[in-house]
Amino acid sequence: MLNETITNILTRVTIRNFTEEPVSDEDIRLLLQAAMAAPSSMNLQPWHFIVIKDEGLKRQLKAALPYAKMINKGCTGIVVCGDISLYERINHIDKEDNTLYWVQDCSAASENLLLAAHAIGLGAVWTGVYPLESRFGKLRALLSIPDYIVPLNLILVGHPVASSLPKNKWNEGKIHNDKF
Amino acid sequence: MLNETITNILTRVTIRNFTEEPVSDEDIRLLLQAAMAAPSSMNLQPWHFIVIKDEGLKRQLKAALPYAKMINKGCTGIVVCGDISLYERINHIDKEDNTLYWVQDCSAASENLLLAAHAIGLGAVWTGVYPLESRFGKLRALLSIPDYIVPLNLILVGHPVASSLPKNKWNEGKIHNDKF
Repeated sequence: MLNETITNILTRVTIRNFTEEPVSDEDIRLLLQAAMAAPSSMNLQPWHFIVIKDEGLKRQLKAALPYAKMINKGCTGIVVCGDISLYERINHIDKEDNTLYWVQDCSAASENLLLAAHAIGLGAVWTGVYPLESRFGKLRALLSIPDYIVPLNLILVGHPVASSLPKNKWNEGKIHNDKF
Repeated sequence: MLNETITNILTRVTIRNFTEEPVSDEDIRLLLQAAMAAPSSMNLQPWHFIVIKDEGLKRQLKAALPYAKMINKGCTGIVVCGDISLYERINHIDKEDNTLYWVQDCSAASENLLLAAHAIGLGAVWTGVYPLESRFGKLRALLSIPDYIVPLNLILVGHPVASSLPKNKWNEGKIHNDKF
């Protein structure tokens, strides 16, 4: 018998079809709480979250990003962003480029958010933005995002139209012992 | 009442002190199963996992990486890597640089692994490797990692010496409504 958390991880699937029922503010808050519980390099917590509920803005996002066609009335958009200004001081100290840790930290936060959504019966899809400048440039303009903040992704969350069977992605060939 | 998955996400902490009790092969397998359940861009599943149990190799890692001082007899090392060769074809098609999606995908897999460890009573620490060439160069040499595979991190997993209180990282200031 697997515990509930492991089962939740193994059964999470991407959901792209949402009912018109909106996601409650309480649920969004819980998802963001889960996201902010992620670990981060030097505990810098470089993440920011733009919660998009405005219907006009959602229509603009849908028109601007071809891979966001599933945006409908019911779903809420969450743009997970990283604050790259946090790394300036650190890079100065150790003379190395720590900047890209924001991608890892914000990705861990995004995964927490997706898992939490699945755990409370919501569905979500992670649509990639960074490192494609053509995509994050559009988000920057639409959402008034300053230069030192980089949008990593656009996550859409909503009530799933139907449940989906999880993919079995287990692959023994991805495991290497001691040496690659 | 929060459900078990949400509680697991909110209470996970970084563990750096491990007992000498080794992690069982069954547990490592479960952690890797959780990791491979992560979503990935275009479902490419770019991850590879090097499981390090050899004591000699662990001592070499400990000597090579200053931030891996907590390596002891009980812990198992897991290097999460990305296969960047998968992106060559795709970048050719859409003329954009999709390569960095491997960092996001492998980070989501890493977070799944950490959450699963916490869920079964193990402790873990994510030590950053990529994008610091000084670090991934050493791992490449020690673990015979080919050029098209990039080590993202070294995760140490073991039985925790003591339980730790989770940090409260909730920060309302990280939430923005509709515009940044």
